[in-house]
Amino acid sequence: MEEIVVSAPGKVILHGEHSVVYGKVAVASSLNLRCYLRLVPNDDGLISLDLPNVDVHQQWSVDRLRTELMSKIHIQGDSSSEPVPPCDEVMKVLKQFADIGTTVLLQSAGKISTPMSSAQGCGDVETVGWSDTERALINQWAFVGEKIIHGQPSGIDNSISALGGAIRFQKKQITPVEKMPSLRVLLTNTKVPRSTKTLVASVGDRYKKYTAVMSPVLDAMEGVAEKCLQVYADLQSNTGSSDAYTQLEELIDINQSLLGAIGVGHATLDKIVLTTARYGLHTKLTGAGGGGCTYTLLRPDVKADTVNKVCQELRQAGFDCWETSIGGPGVLFHSNPSSDSSIPCQLFA
Amino acid sequence: MEEIVVSAPGKVILHGEHSVVYGKVAVASSLNLRCYLRLVPNDDGLISLDLPNVDVHQQWSVDRLRTELMSKIHIQGDSSSEPVPPCDEVMKVLKQFADIGTTVLLQSAGKISTPMSSAQGCGDVETVGWSDTERALINQWAFVGEKIIHGQPSGIDNSISALGGAIRFQKKQITPVEKMPSLRVLLTNTKVPRSTKTLVASVGDRYKKYTAVMSPVLDAMEGVAEKCLQVYADLQSNTGSSDAYTQLEELIDINQSLLGAIGVGHATLDKIVLTTARYGLHTKLTGAGGGGCTYTLLRPDVKADTVNKVCQELRQAGFDCWETSIGGPGVLFHSNPSSDSSIPCQLFA
Repeated sequence: MEEIVVSAPGKVILHGEHSVVYGKVAVASSLNLRCYLRLVPNDDGLISLDLPNVDVHQQWSVDRLRTELMSKIHIQGDSSSEPVPPCDEVMKVLKQFADIGTTVLLQSAGKISTPMSSAQGCGDVETVGWSDTERALINQWAFVGEKIIHGQPSGIDNSISALGGAIRFQKKQITPVEKMPSLRVLLTNTKVPRSTKTLVASVGDRYKKYTAVMSPVLDAMEGVAEKCLQVYADLQSNTGSSDAYTQLEELIDINQSLLGAIGVGHATLDKIVLTTARYGLHTKLTGAGGGGCTYTLLRPDVKADTVNKVCQELRQAGFDCWETSIGGPGVLFHSNPSSDSSIPCQLFA
Repeated sequence: MEEIVVSAPGKVILHGEHSVVYGKVAVASSLNLRCYLRLVPNDDGLISLDLPNVDVHQQWSVDRLRTELMSKIHIQGDSSSEPVPPCDEVMKVLKQFADIGTTVLLQSAGKISTPMSSAQGCGDVETVGWSDTERALINQWAFVGEKIIHGQPSGIDNSISALGGAIRFQKKQITPVEKMPSLRVLLTNTKVPRSTKTLVASVGDRYKKYTAVMSPVLDAMEGVAEKCLQVYADLQSNTGSSDAYTQLEELIDINQSLLGAIGVGHATLDKIVLTTARYGLHTKLTGAGGGGCTYTLLRPDVKADTVNKVCQELRQAGFDCWETSIGGPGVLFHSNPSSDSSIPCQLFA
């Protein structure tokens, strides 16, 4: 048994955050910012988990895991078995094992039990990656992890990380977006902590208080999501009007205003919107809002110098920001990690 | 014949600008910022028009006005006669007379022919002002002036200036708002010039381009206007919930966001919104947007010191601002101008 390196993309909600809770269409996409996991075999009878970026370092006895935990979770190691969320009893045992929170453990467990034999290396992944069935199974296991953390997860996060590209999501139905262009974006983190649950509840309160106002605002948000899907398809098939990027920019502005109208704006978000606007760039929050992250669309012709300047200004204002792109591959098996330049060397430290 | 002083209030659109063009409800109100006109008889055979605040100083021969203009306009001096907009031929003559633009001349003409015999002084106006019929006639004449300037005026401006208080406007129907509280506001002028016509056209373009998005946004704007009318009525009759002012603030914020979504925001408007927000105050643009003016709601308990500070900061940013209130009387006849302290002494300079 050799060491194994896998990676999965981060995710960004392009349009439809919050309105998705009310049955409207949302569009989410993978990001070319990836999370890497290196699995190294050893014979010390321990499973060691090291997540240096989030400062998590844990060890568990394999024997204890086998006898006290894995037997109850019923992971058969059979790729055809249906993933089942743990029952209450197992959850208790899990919590005893994992004082780091059940999230990391369960997601790791999901990855450990993943069938990887037919996986291909990074360079070829777009054509000869895992089979659809295998990806679907990975997705199912990731969803189990999500269920344990969230309670009622949408399924968007695990689907994007497993499948890559973009998805259209509505009323629990996830549909891959067939024609998704790769788009350059600037991702900015306000570093303002927020609770998704609290923000969703506050939108709910506003919806009850001003239903005749909020209901059409949610319809307008769906209109934005649907229109963007059209523009993406046009861009991808080169049938778009010459102002396709202008349209995406206008729709980003409109969506950001609508998110303000439902009350999930924040002074830091306004600051980022106004700062990027001075460079002719268009920004919206992504996710729950009230802080959190934004994305800024970068047209193909935006110069590196412009991006550097805006990033510098945003960093001076105390934000983190990265230039990246959306629409990259889902979970990847890196068959030749030592010569794979996409893998951060930190992983081998 | 003695000298005569009349005044009429300025106007603010509270909610529904732009959406009113699409048949949605708008709410407008008088302001306690008034325009004063002093008519002084003389025997020099000239009509002199002095508007010092806008630097207009003109004179016309009464004989020429009688022979070349007034005979064609058919102003009979009879209070029961129906005002009629001038025909194309008269418009030509008007333009020859008035190189200051036809607006001022026609509105003055309207005022000169107004029956004032039954008018009462300022102090009593709320109970014994002009009769409804007389006010309606003033309103009709003002509307004639509006038609000449605008082409297709809504009738809101002349109605507010003539009738005072607040009105509900929808599809050319003007309904006085019976239960309108007096509300303290801060009025701020960005001093950014804008063309109402251009802004209305740009909203029209966006409506055509993104109908599925814009149509519900306009519905949401109507929802805001209707909800505010409810809250005004509650406030006026003291049946409102304890958070009536909070509701008005939230609805102002929502409306401002929606106006952003239809594309009539401006960096100066954002600046005013953010500045007043730091004092816990809520602001929206009023009118066409893209610059122009804003109003900021001042709850009854906002202290003079706070208002002074926010005004100072806004003035330092280059804006003009005035504290005033909305919901005051319409056109007034000041029966005893020399002892009427409401009249600016500038009028007698």
